[in-house]
Amino acid sequence: MMMTATEYEASLRKLSLKVYMFGKRVKNVVDDPIIRPSMNAVAKTYEMAQLPEYEDIMTATSHISGKKINRFTHIHQSTEDLIKKAKMGRLLGSLTGCCFQRCVGVDSLNALSIVTWNIDQKYGTEYYKRFIKYLEYVQENDLTCDGAMTDPKGDRSLPPHKQADPDMFMRVKEVKDDGIIVCGAKAHQTGAVNSHEIIIMPTIAMQEADKDYAISFALPSDAEGITYIMGRQSCDTRKLEASELDRGNLFYGGHEALCVFDNVFVPWERVFMFREYDFAGQLVEKFASYHRQSYACKSGVGDVLIGAAQTAAEYNGAHKASHIKDKIIEMNHLNETLFCGAIACGCEGKKEASGTFCVDTLLANISKQNVTRLPYEIARLAQDIAGGLIVTLPSAEDFKSEETGKWIEKYFKGRSDVSIEDRFRILRLIENITLGTAAVGYLTESMHGAGSPQAQRVMIARLVDMAAKQKLAKGLCGIEKA
Amino acid sequence: MMMTATEYEASLRKLSLKVYMFGKRVKNVVDDPIIRPSMNAVAKTYEMAQLPEYEDIMTATSHISGKKINRFTHIHQSTEDLIKKAKMGRLLGSLTGCCFQRCVGVDSLNALSIVTWNIDQKYGTEYYKRFIKYLEYVQENDLTCDGAMTDPKGDRSLPPHKQADPDMFMRVKEVKDDGIIVCGAKAHQTGAVNSHEIIIMPTIAMQEADKDYAISFALPSDAEGITYIMGRQSCDTRKLEASELDRGNLFYGGHEALCVFDNVFVPWERVFMFREYDFAGQLVEKFASYHRQSYACKSGVGDVLIGAAQTAAEYNGAHKASHIKDKIIEMNHLNETLFCGAIACGCEGKKEASGTFCVDTLLANISKQNVTRLPYEIARLAQDIAGGLIVTLPSAEDFKSEETGKWIEKYFKGRSDVSIEDRFRILRLIENITLGTAAVGYLTESMHGAGSPQAQRVMIARLVDMAAKQKLAKGLCGIEKA
Amino acid sequence: MMMTATEYEASLRKLSLKVYMFGKRVKNVVDDPIIRPSMNAVAKTYEMAQLPEYEDIMTATSHISGKKINRFTHIHQSTEDLIKKAKMGRLLGSLTGCCFQRCVGVDSLNALSIVTWNIDQKYGTEYYKRFIKYLEYVQENDLTCDGAMTDPKGDRSLPPHKQADPDMFMRVKEVKDDGIIVCGAKAHQTGAVNSHEIIIMPTIAMQEADKDYAISFALPSDAEGITYIMGRQSCDTRKLEASELDRGNLFYGGHEALCVFDNVFVPWERVFMFREYDFAGQLVEKFASYHRQSYACKSGVGDVLIGAAQTAAEYNGAHKASHIKDKIIEMNHLNETLFCGAIACGCEGKKEASGTFCVDTLLANISKQNVTRLPYEIARLAQDIAGGLIVTLPSAEDFKSEETGKWIEKYFKGRSDVSIEDRFRILRLIENITLGTAAVGYLTESMHGAGSPQAQRVMIARLVDMAAKQKLAKGLCGIEKA
Amino acid sequence: MMMTATEYEASLRKLSLKVYMFGKRVKNVVDDPIIRPSMNAVAKTYEMAQLPEYEDIMTATSHISGKKINRFTHIHQSTEDLIKKAKMGRLLGSLTGCCFQRCVGVDSLNALSIVTWNIDQKYGTEYYKRFIKYLEYVQENDLTCDGAMTDPKGDRSLPPHKQADPDMFMRVKEVKDDGIIVCGAKAHQTGAVNSHEIIIMPTIAMQEADKDYAISFALPSDAEGITYIMGRQSCDTRKLEASELDRGNLFYGGHEALCVFDNVFVPWERVFMFREYDFAGQLVEKFASYHRQSYACKSGVGDVLIGAAQTAAEYNGAHKASHIKDKIIEMNHLNETLFCGAIACGCEGKKEASGTFCVDTLLANISKQNVTRLPYEIARLAQDIAGGLIVTLPSAEDFKSEETGKWIEKYFKGRSDVSIEDRFRILRLIENITLGTAAVGYLTESMHGAGSPQAQRVMIARLVDMAAKQKLAKGLCGIEKA
Repeated sequence: MMMTATEYEASLRKLSLKVYMFGKRVKNVVDDPIIRPSMNAVAKTYEMAQLPEYEDIMTATSHISGKKINRFTHIHQSTEDLIKKAKMGRLLGSLTGCCFQRCVGVDSLNALSIVTWNIDQKYGTEYYKRFIKYLEYVQENDLTCDGAMTDPKGDRSLPPHKQADPDMFMRVKEVKDDGIIVCGAKAHQTGAVNSHEIIIMPTIAMQEADKDYAISFALPSDAEGITYIMGRQSCDTRKLEASELDRGNLFYGGHEALCVFDNVFVPWERVFMFREYDFAGQLVEKFASYHRQSYACKSGVGDVLIGAAQTAAEYNGAHKASHIKDKIIEMNHLNETLFCGAIACGCEGKKEASGTFCVDTLLANISKQNVTRLPYEIARLAQDIAGGLIVTLPSAEDFKSEETGKWIEKYFKGRSDVSIEDRFRILRLIENITLGTAAVGYLTESMHGAGSPQAQRVMIARLVDMAAKQKLAKGLCGIEKA
Repeated sequence: MMMTATEYEASLRKLSLKVYMFGKRVKNVVDDPIIRPSMNAVAKTYEMAQLPEYEDIMTATSHISGKKINRFTHIHQSTEDLIKKAKMGRLLGSLTGCCFQRCVGVDSLNALSIVTWNIDQKYGTEYYKRFIKYLEYVQENDLTCDGAMTDPKGDRSLPPHKQADPDMFMRVKEVKDDGIIVCGAKAHQTGAVNSHEIIIMPTIAMQEADKDYAISFALPSDAEGITYIMGRQSCDTRKLEASELDRGNLFYGGHEALCVFDNVFVPWERVFMFREYDFAGQLVEKFASYHRQSYACKSGVGDVLIGAAQTAAEYNGAHKASHIKDKIIEMNHLNETLFCGAIACGCEGKKEASGTFCVDTLLANISKQNVTRLPYEIARLAQDIAGGLIVTLPSAEDFKSEETGKWIEKYFKGRSDVSIEDRFRILRLIENITLGTAAVGYLTESMHGAGSPQAQRVMIARLVDMAAKQKLAKGLCGIEKA
Repeated sequence: MMMTATEYEASLRKLSLKVYMFGKRVKNVVDDPIIRPSMNAVAKTYEMAQLPEYEDIMTATSHISGKKINRFTHIHQSTEDLIKKAKMGRLLGSLTGCCFQRCVGVDSLNALSIVTWNIDQKYGTEYYKRFIKYLEYVQENDLTCDGAMTDPKGDRSLPPHKQADPDMFMRVKEVKDDGIIVCGAKAHQTGAVNSHEIIIMPTIAMQEADKDYAISFALPSDAEGITYIMGRQSCDTRKLEASELDRGNLFYGGHEALCVFDNVFVPWERVFMFREYDFAGQLVEKFASYHRQSYACKSGVGDVLIGAAQTAAEYNGAHKASHIKDKIIEMNHLNETLFCGAIACGCEGKKEASGTFCVDTLLANISKQNVTRLPYEIARLAQDIAGGLIVTLPSAEDFKSEETGKWIEKYFKGRSDVSIEDRFRILRLIENITLGTAAVGYLTESMHGAGSPQAQRVMIARLVDMAAKQKLAKGLCGIEKA
Repeated sequence: MMMTATEYEASLRKLSLKVYMFGKRVKNVVDDPIIRPSMNAVAKTYEMAQLPEYEDIMTATSHISGKKINRFTHIHQSTEDLIKKAKMGRLLGSLTGCCFQRCVGVDSLNALSIVTWNIDQKYGTEYYKRFIKYLEYVQENDLTCDGAMTDPKGDRSLPPHKQADPDMFMRVKEVKDDGIIVCGAKAHQTGAVNSHEIIIMPTIAMQEADKDYAISFALPSDAEGITYIMGRQSCDTRKLEASELDRGNLFYGGHEALCVFDNVFVPWERVFMFREYDFAGQLVEKFASYHRQSYACKSGVGDVLIGAAQTAAEYNGAHKASHIKDKIIEMNHLNETLFCGAIACGCEGKKEASGTFCVDTLLANISKQNVTRLPYEIARLAQDIAGGLIVTLPSAEDFKSEETGKWIEKYFKGRSDVSIEDRFRILRLIENITLGTAAVGYLTESMHGAGSPQAQRVMIARLVDMAAKQKLAKGLCGIEKA
């Protein structure tokens, strides 16, 4: 049963998460003003799935139950599904103007649907069956899952088992009859405290000596022993200010957290990989491939930023200047180039042994590599168009103040038919996406999420068929006979 | 019936084209050493279609006859067809290392299959029926068509009918019972003298006063009154030299020609648009959209250049340097970014009223815009990797000469297990693609073919939905209520 | 007499500025925690001038008094002076990691030293004498001047006298025996509330109808009728937080303010241009040229960011990876490219009629144009190297907290010999320069300060000698005889 | 005595060089149509030095003889000299539109003036005295010197003495009473056959085992045992065609040659380094630094290309389009950015122990690194502006032909007041610089001359003071106390 946004919010209230922020435990996670906008963004994934006009893009038919489910819980059954996932990402990015956090869950579910099958083929295990049962639960209850991959890693030159502190990678600490005890942490967890479930995956390919680190499992997000420590963002505390005017994006945001697992018990039915170290790399690669496509959402955020830049230009009357028009075109060109990558890697997806469709790995990496670059240039152009006022605008309080409000009204007037407040609002939105809380998602997360740029370059080097290209060249110039 | 490469060559010999080059009439077009490599490149489109392993990509089933046909004569019946067209382009680009010239024909056939239908709907004409009959003829005989759009244009600030010389745009000069007499010229005609047919289309949107210019028709390439004047290319005369060694690409090339129509008669059954000026723009746009996708071929040429750069690096032992590896990755990244665009605009294609599938126009323009930039950077990186020797290498004669050959053998030795001649060959191939005959296609044609960069920018500005983007931005910052 | 930093601070305390921030009047400007770091940055210009090892770069010999003065009050007497100004900017940028605000004063003094002379030549006025007297006062007292140019401008398509509100550009409202009454405002005033003086200049070239707007004058910053409204910056309120740890830059910052002139009296001896509208454009151009060079400071901030990125890489052990090294090289390359521009326009400076040396205007515009681009790429690379942690790091309170501190200590450990706190600090510094308060200066101000990018492009178009270049080309290809 | 251009040509006729091209010995080097344009370019350095209006830039006062000399034989005595050298390079690049080849000589003379002094200081040798005597001869006779550095290098992973063939680096083969016998070769020698002298320098830093390779000396270019093998260039044979019309640049060009030394005798008075292996690296670095600045010439060639692009736009009436204007601005911006680098590294030059002024090494490397990139983008923009016609233009013979000339006249007409021939000429010039013979110098030589891009990056990494930058960063964020 798909939840409504309201039901989703209610479901979160039932969780008893242990969340810390600014040095204190957050008592009411759902209503915390810093966290709330990120909850709103996830709620949007529920809200949109209820709208008939978005049914095709936001929902799918479960290949298990045959029921209509939120696409964020769906296992891709075709390249169409992969393409729709990209479009869903762009749609939600454009509606929230930020990271809506739920893609990481669907990406981990799909990766597990492939790898659990493959492990079973080799080892005669029953992970796939377990996984499907878990999936049914997720689909049935329309849950938000945090797909958690990034370990702290400690000394990057050492493998997990050689680390001074054994917990630098998530590990099995103890094996029990009914399950395992794990220790470790996952960093940069997007949307962690808005999730019902957390799905753990290893973060690197492993050798036998690391087998205790080759684990994957899922737990309720409020399982005993899990602690969340919120990361702070540029301009986060503006959400605590009395006036909404300086926030930029009034409704939505993202968040990241460090998730600490302190001797946490996982029952066997929730374990999807246990010491099959030779599949750790495959799980990483599958998840990363899916997740690199997911950055399609940035073209949605780009839509917002382009719309904001155009509006800012209109508000000060500069929108007819040829250089402004050209910059808007360039922003659109770059933004659609991002979208092309996400579509192409979906379109070129292939069916895996388990029946799941996976994106084309090479093109997913190409796509994400562009995401590490082009949003920065789009943001630069937005600042160019917006003008210096985005960083010299007085505060909302000054705007409302009796003593200074009149001067601001008088001197920040642009076009006579545009209210100062509207001009204020649109500039704050551009500030938000290029320097503020949303810049975290639009820029830095675009850089490092789903793997830093070098990770994609390593994959590109591995995936292109250089021998074939050399053969072509050698044939044409006569080094080799055709 | 699909022709073999041999049959294709034989069919060309039957044409009596009036071709001029270096101030003289070319007596034997097929065997002329300057032109021959371009014929070889077109022949490759016939050769590959015969190979079972490429059947899926190189051939299609005619929606008229139900027979297997060369994909270059096919009307796209699905997005799969559009995607396969892109892959066919990359394949042939990679096999020839140059422009294989035949895409322009399939692009004009598809554009006409849409627009003739649309004209008929509005005016009750029978162009579509005529067109389909013509298409049957093309498919049945597996013909190569030159899709000819670019008029000389004269003074660019004036519309066709205001030009001092009325022939600056192709026009109806006289209307007869059995057909029309046309005058004008088409410039930059890729593969013109390797084509059986030439398909004329208008080059701009038109108003009523220009209706005599709003014409489209097809003729045999050797129709009475058509003259071809070959354009010259960088390093063209190397193909006349005794040794093959300095050519770079030993087998393939491209060509462009100016096609002059001097009072040429066109029978009515070959006329597909006649004074329906309000459809001139649509025909331009449809053809341009298809053709902008066709630049997928450049990622095939890019494959060759990447393979050549890698080989050159291996030949001088530099391939293990991290900066060389990184440059190869960058070349691949840019090259696959081009491919993503071509795939994405095909994948997002839509069915037109006539049943033909057309690429997504916005993404086709995005794709081509990248083609006007990225190959130049790939070429720059190739020159970086290749080293200065690509432009200081002595001539083939010096290499073979008794007096200098020994010095060249001695001093241009790179790795001991690589022959000097092989090193020569690979460097000449890189020279060929970045400065020589193939640079014409890989660089300058990438810039201007299917419309110069500004043409795409105008289209991007027109096609993006700025109002929707502004609405998103205004909603998020509170200017407009959601 | 050059002031020490302490004397400078004391001198500011004597001012009675009317400053508003967050809707309230700031009672103690000097000690306000938001403003204080910007005062510290200006103070650095005093502190450094006292150090013998920086005497050459930080001080000069007054061409009026022959005394040693702070270079920020000096009129350039040679190209060496211009070059030293650029180096002083880089030095202070590197020491403060932000905008130190004082360059705008020296740039306006130098511009006035040229233009007042030129006005006198044409009109027989005595502005230059007045100006020199004022300059003596500034040099003698080692004052910080805010050079104020940017008017609100209202409807950008209208000249000053056509604006609905006559105050959209600073204007003479009333002429009195002993001086003039002015009204208007200046926006984006860097360092305004840390200045002793404010020097007003027109913001555009003007026609006769605008002559009441063609004014230049200087006033004490706390003159009756001047109100300052502080602009807010990304992350500004972190300076109000208890812990210093999340600030990034512990000591320095910049600020901008809107300065409102409400019927302010200017005595004649402080008026340097009065209705000589034909010199308004010249004053703008001279000031802009000087000020475009002043962005040399950004290569100093770049030094800090490069140092921080290198340190962050060392702290997590990634600094030996070839791609990290290469990115550091690229950051340095771009940063020194900025420096080259600032040096070159100084080196190519010329003596003006008044004896003042002015930078080469074309190269100053080239230099600034690069400043609108390269810092953004340097910042992007810094974020690449720093890793996602710069935006997911918990707060200082979490770090200190008993409950969460242990987890942060445990899991954010990088290299074992580096303290977590140090890692925290360096990441916060990178956040500060790329997203936080210093990003305002390093990025957005680099974009728009001293004129937005298009302003430089207009100047470049005007200043290059296209006719000469065309003559060269026409000569070489035989269109024109040599 | 400074030679005139005529005297220079006459002096070359007296040489008996052994030059091979296209497999045959060139009998008359000076009049060979392929080589001649390169001689013309060198002659320009003599011609310009005779013109009073260029005296300041083209000539200098010898610090030995006190006589007026051509600046190309001058040892820099000040930063002004270094700056003038850069301007001389730009001037000649703009007048010839190509590589004028003579900078390599002055750069090697200056490098030797520093390093011979330094060797003497350490070893008590008398190289400096020898060198000065040689310099007097060069200055007195106004000679053109080929500074020859690049050895073939063989297997790049091995040092000189470990190469399978001992001649892969120039070496002492035999020591005699009156001099030495040397063997080896120098590749990519720009202007070699237009030079009176050839100055040999080592190509890498060396260890003791390589001491026989640590040699520097000068010889007349026609010394017994030296053979020149000409490199071929893109479009080289167009210079052999009857019509000048397809050449682009009618007068000037460059050339490179392989110079083979087959048991060549060097008298002691011409030897400037002999087994002082510890100075090989210094000589390389000094020469490279000077020579990296010399690429200032490319901003001169850029002037020609910008002028040509502007003219081409005017000829087809597109020059008023805003995107064309913007591209011209961008070309100028990039071109002047190159110039800034050359000026800045001269301006920041320092006096060496011998009294010679040397450029700032870091900034010279920055400058050259930009030269490996920006000309490619300028060329791309030139092709954008020029239109596809630069690669589809028929041949000169077609233009003149009775049968085709009329069609070309009719259909390639742009603006009515511009002759077709002029349009032809300007497009051929753009082809020449972006794809033809001059592209060799403007693009590929910009990439690899004076060291490939990676060589500069290695130097940048070595020369920036990272420790100082880290100290700044650590101070600001509180890791280190100020």
